[in-house]
Amino acid sequence: MGPQEHRVERRLAAIFAADVAGYSRLMEQNEVGTLQTLAVHREIMDGLIAEHRGRIANTAGDSVLAEFPSAVDAVKCAVEVQKALASIDQDRPEEARVRFRIGVHVGDVMVQRGDLLGDGVNIAARLESIAAPGGVCISATTHEYVRKALPLAYTDLGPQQVKNLEDPIQSYAVSRLPSAPTSLEEAAD
Amino acid sequence: MGPQEHRVERRLAAIFAADVAGYSRLMEQNEVGTLQTLAVHREIMDGLIAEHRGRIANTAGDSVLAEFPSAVDAVKCAVEVQKALASIDQDRPEEARVRFRIGVHVGDVMVQRGDLLGDGVNIAARLESIAAPGGVCISATTHEYVRKALPLAYTDLGPQQVKNLEDPIQSYAVSRLPSAPTSLEEAAD
Repeated sequence: MGPQEHRVERRLAAIFAADVAGYSRLMEQNEVGTLQTLAVHREIMDGLIAEHRGRIANTAGDSVLAEFPSAVDAVKCAVEVQKALASIDQDRPEEARVRFRIGVHVGDVMVQRGDLLGDGVNIAARLESIAAPGGVCISATTHEYVRKALPLAYTDLGPQQVKNLEDPIQSYAVSRLPSAPTSLEEAAD
Repeated sequence: MGPQEHRVERRLAAIFAADVAGYSRLMEQNEVGTLQTLAVHREIMDGLIAEHRGRIANTAGDSVLAEFPSAVDAVKCAVEVQKALASIDQDRPEEARVRFRIGVHVGDVMVQRGDLLGDGVNIAARLESIAAPGGVCISATTHEYVRKALPLAYTDLGPQQVKNLEDPIQSYAVSRLPSAPTSLEEAAD
Protein backbone atom coordinates (compact mmCIF):
# COMPACT_ATOMS: atom_id res chain seq x y z
CA MET A 1 0.00 0.00 0.00
CA GLY A 2 1.44 3.37 -0.99
CA PRO A 3 1.38 6.59 0.99
CA GLN A 4 -2.18 7.52 1.83
CA GLU A 5 -3.84 10.52 0.28
CA HIS A 6 -6.05 11.18 3.26
CA ARG A 7 -4.01 10.55 6.34
CA VAL A 8 -6.19 9.35 9.22
CA GLU A 9 -4.87 10.14 12.67
CA ARG A 10 -5.90 8.08 15.63
CA ARG A 11 -6.34 9.48 19.11
CA LEU A 12 -7.89 8.66 22.42
CA ALA A 13 -10.73 11.06 23.09
CA ALA A 14 -13.85 11.39 25.17
CA ILE A 15 -16.71 11.72 22.70
CA PHE A 16 -19.64 13.90 23.71
CA ALA A 17 -22.84 13.48 21.67
CA ALA A 18 -25.89 15.65 22.30
CA ASP A 19 -29.23 16.18 20.68
CA VAL A 20 -32.62 17.61 21.54
CA ALA A 21 -35.30 15.24 22.85
CA GLY A 22 -38.49 15.51 20.77
CA TYR A 23 -36.96 18.04 18.38
CA SER A 24 -39.39 17.32 15.52
CA ARG A 25 -42.39 17.77 17.81
CA LEU A 26 -40.97 21.03 19.21
CA MET A 27 -40.33 22.35 15.71
CA GLU A 28 -43.81 21.39 14.58
CA GLN A 29 -45.40 23.16 17.55
CA ASN A 30 -43.31 26.32 17.46
CA GLU A 31 -40.57 26.59 14.88
CA VAL A 32 -39.37 30.13 15.61
CA GLY A 33 -39.56 29.80 19.38
CA THR A 34 -37.74 26.44 19.35
CA LEU A 35 -34.95 27.76 17.14
CA GLN A 36 -34.55 30.81 19.38
CA THR A 37 -34.36 28.68 22.52
CA LEU A 38 -32.00 26.28 20.79
CA ALA A 39 -29.68 29.16 19.86
CA VAL A 40 -29.55 30.34 23.50
CA HIS A 41 -28.92 26.79 24.72
CA ARG A 42 -26.24 26.20 22.12
CA GLU A 43 -24.44 29.35 23.18
CA ILE A 44 -24.32 28.10 26.76
CA MET A 45 -23.33 24.58 25.70
CA ASP A 46 -20.63 25.76 23.30
CA GLY A 47 -19.18 28.04 25.99
CA LEU A 48 -19.03 25.22 28.52
CA ILE A 49 -17.50 22.85 25.96
CA ALA A 50 -14.70 25.35 25.26
CA GLU A 51 -14.24 25.99 28.98
CA HIS A 52 -13.68 22.25 29.51
CA ARG A 53 -11.12 22.09 26.68
CA GLY A 54 -13.55 20.40 24.28
CA ARG A 55 -13.67 20.83 20.53
CA ILE A 56 -16.90 20.72 18.54
CA ALA A 57 -16.30 18.41 15.59
CA ASN A 58 -19.75 18.43 14.05
CA THR A 59 -23.13 20.04 14.42
CA ALA A 60 -26.24 19.23 12.41
CA GLY A 61 -29.63 20.71 13.24
CA ASP A 62 -30.16 19.91 16.90
CA SER A 63 -27.13 17.62 17.34
CA VAL A 64 -23.64 18.37 18.59
CA LEU A 65 -20.61 16.09 18.47
CA ALA A 66 -17.57 17.15 20.46
CA GLU A 67 -14.32 15.60 21.66
CA PHE A 68 -12.43 16.20 24.89
CA PRO A 69 -8.85 15.27 25.78
CA SER A 70 -10.02 13.89 29.14
CA ALA A 71 -13.01 11.76 30.19
CA VAL A 72 -13.20 13.70 33.44
CA ASP A 73 -13.53 17.00 31.56
CA ALA A 74 -16.17 15.60 29.19
CA VAL A 75 -18.40 14.25 31.97
CA LYS A 76 -17.97 17.40 34.08
CA CYS A 77 -18.95 19.44 31.05
CA ALA A 78 -22.02 17.30 30.30
CA VAL A 79 -23.30 17.61 33.87
CA GLU A 80 -22.60 21.38 33.95
CA VAL A 81 -24.41 21.83 30.63
CA GLN A 82 -27.51 20.05 31.88
CA LYS A 83 -27.45 22.05 35.11
CA ALA A 84 -27.13 25.37 33.27
CA LEU A 85 -29.84 24.55 30.74
CA ALA A 86 -32.25 23.28 33.40
CA SER A 87 -31.79 26.51 35.29
CA ILE A 88 -32.70 28.76 32.35
CA ASP A 89 -35.53 26.43 31.30
CA GLN A 90 -37.29 26.31 34.64
CA ASP A 91 -39.70 29.17 33.94
CA ARG A 92 -40.71 27.75 30.59
CA PRO A 93 -43.83 25.52 30.32
CA GLU A 94 -42.96 21.82 30.26
CA GLU A 95 -43.97 21.32 26.63
CA ALA A 96 -41.81 24.22 25.39
CA ARG A 97 -38.59 23.06 27.09
CA VAL A 98 -35.70 22.29 24.80
CA ARG A 99 -33.93 19.49 26.58
CA PHE A 100 -30.80 17.77 25.38
CA ARG A 101 -29.87 14.15 25.87
CA ILE A 102 -26.09 13.76 26.25
CA GLY A 103 -23.96 10.62 25.82
CA VAL A 104 -20.26 10.29 26.62
CA HIS A 105 -17.91 7.49 25.58
CA VAL A 106 -14.12 7.10 25.43
CA GLY A 107 -12.79 5.83 22.12
CA ASP A 108 -9.58 5.49 20.14
CA VAL A 109 -11.16 7.48 17.32
CA MET A 110 -9.97 8.34 13.86
CA VAL A 111 -9.75 11.98 12.93
CA GLN A 112 -9.79 13.06 9.32
CA ARG A 113 -9.92 16.76 8.42
CA GLY A 114 -11.36 17.46 11.87
CA ASP A 115 -14.14 14.87 11.52
CA LEU A 116 -14.43 12.14 14.12
CA LEU A 117 -14.87 8.64 12.77
CA GLY A 118 -15.15 5.12 14.14
CA ASP A 119 -16.95 2.85 16.54
CA GLY A 120 -16.45 5.19 19.48
CA VAL A 121 -18.54 7.88 17.83
CA ASN A 122 -21.43 5.49 17.14
CA ILE A 123 -21.35 4.29 20.73
CA ALA A 124 -21.50 7.87 22.07
CA ALA A 125 -24.55 8.51 19.86
CA ARG A 126 -26.23 5.34 21.16
CA LEU A 127 -25.55 6.35 24.76
CA GLU A 128 -27.10 9.71 24.02
CA SER A 129 -30.26 7.95 22.77
CA ILE A 130 -30.46 6.06 26.08
CA ALA A 131 -30.15 9.26 28.17
CA ALA A 132 -33.28 10.83 29.64
CA PRO A 133 -34.23 14.31 28.33
CA GLY A 134 -32.05 16.67 30.36
CA GLY A 135 -29.86 13.72 31.36
CA VAL A 136 -26.39 12.29 30.79
CA CYS A 137 -25.56 8.70 29.98
CA ILE A 138 -21.98 7.36 29.92
CA SER A 139 -20.39 4.05 28.95
CA ALA A 140 -18.94 1.67 31.53
CA THR A 141 -15.46 2.50 30.19
CA THR A 142 -16.06 6.19 30.82
CA HIS A 143 -17.44 5.39 34.27
CA GLU A 144 -14.21 3.57 35.09
CA TYR A 145 -12.20 6.73 34.29
CA VAL A 146 -14.37 9.23 36.14
CA ARG A 147 -15.91 7.44 39.10
CA LYS A 148 -13.03 8.16 41.48
CA ALA A 149 -12.36 11.68 40.19
CA LEU A 150 -15.91 13.07 40.07
CA PRO A 151 -18.29 12.89 43.04
CA LEU A 152 -21.51 12.39 41.07
CA ALA A 153 -24.48 10.03 41.33
CA TYR A 154 -23.90 7.09 38.95
CA THR A 155 -26.83 4.77 38.26
CA ASP A 156 -25.98 1.47 36.59
CA LEU A 157 -28.47 1.05 33.72
CA GLY A 158 -27.35 -2.53 33.04
CA PRO A 159 -26.72 -3.86 29.54
CA GLN A 160 -28.69 -1.90 26.92
CA GLN A 161 -29.33 -3.32 23.49
CA VAL A 162 -29.03 -0.55 20.90
CA LYS A 163 -29.52 -0.52 17.17
CA ASN A 164 -26.62 -1.26 14.82
CA LEU A 165 -24.42 -2.63 17.60
CA GLU A 166 -24.04 -6.35 18.06
CA ASP A 167 -23.20 -6.35 21.77
CA PRO A 168 -25.31 -4.58 24.40
CA ILE A 169 -23.78 -1.42 25.91
CA GLN A 170 -23.03 -1.23 29.62
CA SER A 171 -24.05 2.23 30.68
CA TYR A 172 -24.56 4.58 33.61
CA ALA A 173 -26.87 7.55 34.09
CA VAL A 174 -25.00 10.43 35.72
CA SER A 175 -26.41 13.28 37.76
CA ARG A 176 -25.31 15.65 40.47
CA LEU A 177 -25.42 14.43 44.03
CA PRO A 178 -28.27 15.98 46.07
CA SER A 179 -25.66 17.72 48.21
CA ALA A 180 -23.40 18.64 45.29
CA PRO A 181 -21.26 21.76 45.45
CA THR A 182 -22.36 24.60 43.16
CA SER A 183 -19.58 23.80 40.77
CA LEU A 184 -17.81 20.52 40.21
CA GLU A 185 -14.56 22.43 39.87
CA GLU A 186 -13.99 22.48 43.59
CA ALA A 187 -14.44 18.79 44.06
CA ALA A 188 -12.61 17.56 41.00
CA ASP A 189 -9.42 19.59 41.00
CA MET B 1 -10.12 26.12 47.37
CA GLY B 2 -8.13 28.95 45.78
CA PRO B 3 -6.28 28.85 42.48
CA GLN B 4 -3.87 25.98 42.43
CA GLU B 5 -0.15 26.57 42.39
CA HIS B 6 0.61 23.45 40.41
CA ARG B 7 -2.01 23.08 37.75
CA VAL B 8 -2.64 19.43 36.94
CA GLU B 9 -3.90 18.67 33.47
CA ARG B 10 -5.87 15.55 32.75
CA ARG B 11 -5.72 13.67 29.49
CA LEU B 12 -6.56 10.33 27.99
CA ALA B 13 -3.36 8.56 27.05
CA ALA B 14 -2.03 5.11 26.34
CA ILE B 15 0.67 4.48 28.94
CA PHE B 16 3.64 2.36 27.88
CA ALA B 17 5.81 0.98 30.71
CA ALA B 18 8.96 -1.01 29.99
CA ASP B 19 11.79 -2.44 32.00
CA VAL B 20 14.50 -5.04 31.63
CA ALA B 21 13.79 -8.56 32.90
CA GLY B 22 16.49 -9.70 35.36
CA TYR B 23 18.32 -6.38 35.18
CA SER B 24 20.11 -6.81 38.53
CA ARG B 25 21.38 -10.25 37.54
CA LEU B 26 22.58 -8.96 34.15
CA MET B 27 24.39 -6.05 35.79
CA GLU B 28 25.97 -8.33 38.34
CA GLN B 29 27.23 -10.68 35.63
CA ASN B 30 28.47 -8.05 33.19
CA GLU B 31 27.97 -4.44 34.05
CA VAL B 32 29.74 -2.83 31.07
CA GLY B 33 28.34 -5.25 28.51
CA THR B 34 24.79 -4.90 29.87
CA LEU B 35 24.93 -1.11 29.83
CA GLN B 36 26.29 -1.14 26.27
CA THR B 37 23.52 -3.46 25.09
CA LEU B 38 20.93 -1.43 26.99
CA ALA B 39 22.12 1.75 25.25
CA VAL B 40 21.73 0.13 21.82
CA HIS B 41 18.29 -1.20 22.74
CA ARG B 42 17.17 2.13 24.14
CA GLU B 43 18.18 3.89 20.95
CA ILE B 44 15.97 1.52 18.95
CA MET B 45 13.13 1.76 21.44
CA ASP B 46 13.28 5.55 21.67
CA GLY B 47 13.29 5.83 17.88
CA LEU B 48 10.23 3.60 17.55
CA ILE B 49 8.41 5.49 20.33
CA ALA B 50 8.96 8.78 18.50
CA GLU B 51 7.94 7.19 15.19
CA HIS B 52 4.64 6.14 16.76
CA ARG B 53 4.02 9.65 18.14
CA GLY B 54 4.91 8.66 21.69
CA ARG B 55 6.54 10.87 24.31
CA ILE B 56 8.96 9.54 26.92
CA ALA B 57 7.85 10.96 30.26
CA ASN B 58 10.32 9.24 32.54
CA THR B 59 13.32 6.97 32.44
CA ALA B 60 15.13 5.53 35.44
CA GLY B 61 17.90 2.95 35.08
CA ASP B 62 16.38 0.19 32.99
CA SER B 63 12.81 1.53 32.98
CA VAL B 64 10.97 3.67 30.45
CA LEU B 65 7.58 5.31 30.86
CA ALA B 66 5.99 6.81 27.75
CA GLU B 67 2.59 8.09 26.69
CA PHE B 68 0.90 7.85 23.31
CA PRO B 69 -2.13 9.75 22.01
CA SER B 70 -3.63 6.50 20.67
CA ALA B 71 -3.89 2.97 22.10
CA VAL B 72 -3.40 1.57 18.61
CA ASP B 73 -0.10 3.44 18.22
CA ALA B 74 1.13 2.37 21.66
CA VAL B 75 0.45 -1.34 21.10
CA LYS B 76 1.88 -1.24 17.56
CA CYS B 77 4.98 0.40 18.97
CA ALA B 78 5.35 -2.16 21.78
CA VAL B 79 5.14 -5.07 19.36
CA GLU B 80 7.54 -3.41 16.90
CA VAL B 81 10.03 -2.73 19.71
CA GLN B 82 10.01 -6.36 20.82
CA LYS B 83 10.42 -7.54 17.24
CA ALA B 84 13.35 -5.19 16.58
CA LEU B 85 15.11 -6.05 19.84
CA ALA B 86 14.62 -9.80 19.37
CA SER B 87 16.18 -9.54 15.95
CA ILE B 88 19.37 -7.83 17.15
CA ASP B 89 19.54 -10.09 20.22
CA GLN B 90 19.31 -13.38 18.35
CA ASP B 91 23.07 -13.94 18.02
CA ARG B 92 23.69 -13.22 21.68
CA PRO B 93 23.86 -16.10 24.19
CA GLU B 94 20.59 -16.57 26.08
CA GLU B 95 22.02 -15.40 29.41
CA ALA B 96 23.38 -12.14 27.97
CA ARG B 97 20.14 -11.03 26.30
CA VAL B 98 18.69 -7.78 27.50
CA ARG B 99 14.97 -8.34 27.21
CA PHE B 100 12.31 -5.81 28.08
CA ARG B 101 8.89 -6.54 29.47
CA ILE B 102 6.33 -4.03 28.19
CA GLY B 103 2.91 -3.15 29.62
CA VAL B 104 0.29 -0.91 27.98
CA HIS B 105 -2.80 0.58 29.61
CA VAL B 106 -5.20 3.40 28.70
CA GLY B 107 -5.82 5.92 31.46
CA ASP B 108 -7.25 9.38 32.09
CA VAL B 109 -3.91 10.42 33.57
CA MET B 110 -2.78 13.57 35.28
CA VAL B 111 0.16 15.42 33.81
CA GLN B 112 2.19 17.80 35.90
CA ARG B 113 5.35 19.38 34.49
CA GLY B 114 5.56 16.55 31.97
CA ASP B 115 5.29 13.83 34.64
CA LEU B 116 2.53 11.25 34.35
CA LEU B 117 0.58 10.60 37.53
CA GLY B 118 -2.37 8.50 38.62
CA ASP B 119 -3.85 5.04 38.75
CA GLY B 120 -3.36 4.47 35.03
CA VAL B 121 0.41 4.68 35.40
CA ASN B 122 0.47 2.15 38.24
CA ILE B 123 -1.66 -0.24 36.22
CA ALA B 124 0.68 0.00 33.21
CA ALA B 125 3.62 -0.83 35.50
CA ARG B 126 1.75 -3.84 36.90
CA LEU B 127 0.93 -5.07 33.40
CA GLU B 128 4.60 -4.77 32.53
CA SER B 129 5.48 -6.99 35.52
CA ILE B 130 3.05 -9.64 34.19
CA ALA B 131 4.60 -9.60 30.67
CA ALA B 132 7.06 -12.33 29.71
CA PRO B 133 10.66 -11.20 29.00
CA GLY B 134 10.54 -9.97 25.39
CA GLY B 135 6.73 -9.82 25.62
CA VAL B 136 3.90 -7.32 25.73
CA CYS B 137 0.97 -7.35 28.14
CA ILE B 138 -2.03 -5.04 27.78
CA SER B 139 -5.11 -4.32 29.89
CA ALA B 140 -8.59 -5.45 28.87
CA THR B 141 -9.49 -1.79 28.24
CA THR B 142 -6.58 -1.44 25.84
CA HIS B 143 -7.55 -4.72 24.18
CA GLU B 144 -11.02 -3.32 23.54
CA TYR B 145 -9.51 -0.36 21.67
CA VAL B 146 -7.00 -2.28 19.56
CA ARG B 147 -8.47 -5.71 18.88
CA LYS B 148 -10.33 -4.67 15.74
CA ALA B 149 -7.63 -2.31 14.45
CA LEU B 150 -4.53 -4.49 14.92
CA PRO B 151 -4.31 -8.04 13.57
CA LEU B 152 -2.20 -9.51 16.39
CA ALA B 153 -2.41 -12.64 18.53
CA TYR B 154 -4.16 -11.75 21.82
CA THR B 155 -4.02 -14.31 24.64
CA ASP B 156 -6.43 -13.74 27.51
CA LEU B 157 -4.40 -14.11 30.71
CA GLY B 158 -7.50 -13.98 32.92
CA PRO B 159 -7.69 -11.92 36.10
CA GLN B 160 -4.23 -11.27 37.57
CA GLN B 161 -3.80 -10.24 41.19
CA VAL B 162 -1.01 -7.66 41.42
CA LYS B 163 0.53 -5.89 44.35
CA ASN B 164 -0.89 -2.57 45.57
CA LEU B 165 -4.10 -2.95 43.58
CA GLU B 166 -7.30 -4.10 45.24
CA ASP B 167 -9.00 -5.58 42.17
CA PRO B 168 -7.34 -8.12 39.89
CA ILE B 169 -6.32 -6.84 36.44
CA GLN B 170 -7.83 -8.35 33.31
CA SER B 171 -4.98 -8.65 30.85
CA TYR B 172 -3.91 -9.98 27.47
CA ALA B 173 -0.52 -11.06 26.16
CA VAL B 174 0.06 -9.69 22.67
CA SER B 175 2.33 -11.03 19.96
CA ARG B 176 2.59 -11.01 16.21
CA LEU B 177 0.55 -13.53 14.28
CA PRO B 178 2.63 -16.36 12.81
CA SER B 179 1.76 -15.07 9.33
CA ALA B 180 2.20 -11.40 10.25
CA PRO B 181 3.26 -8.91 7.63
CA THR B 182 6.79 -7.50 8.01
CA SER B 183 5.38 -4.28 9.35
CA LEU B 184 2.08 -3.68 11.10
CA GLU B 185 1.78 -0.41 9.21
CA GLU B 186 0.21 -2.08 6.23
CA ALA B 187 -2.46 -3.85 8.15
CA ALA B 188 -3.36 -1.10 10.57
CA ASP B 189 -3.68 1.97 8.38
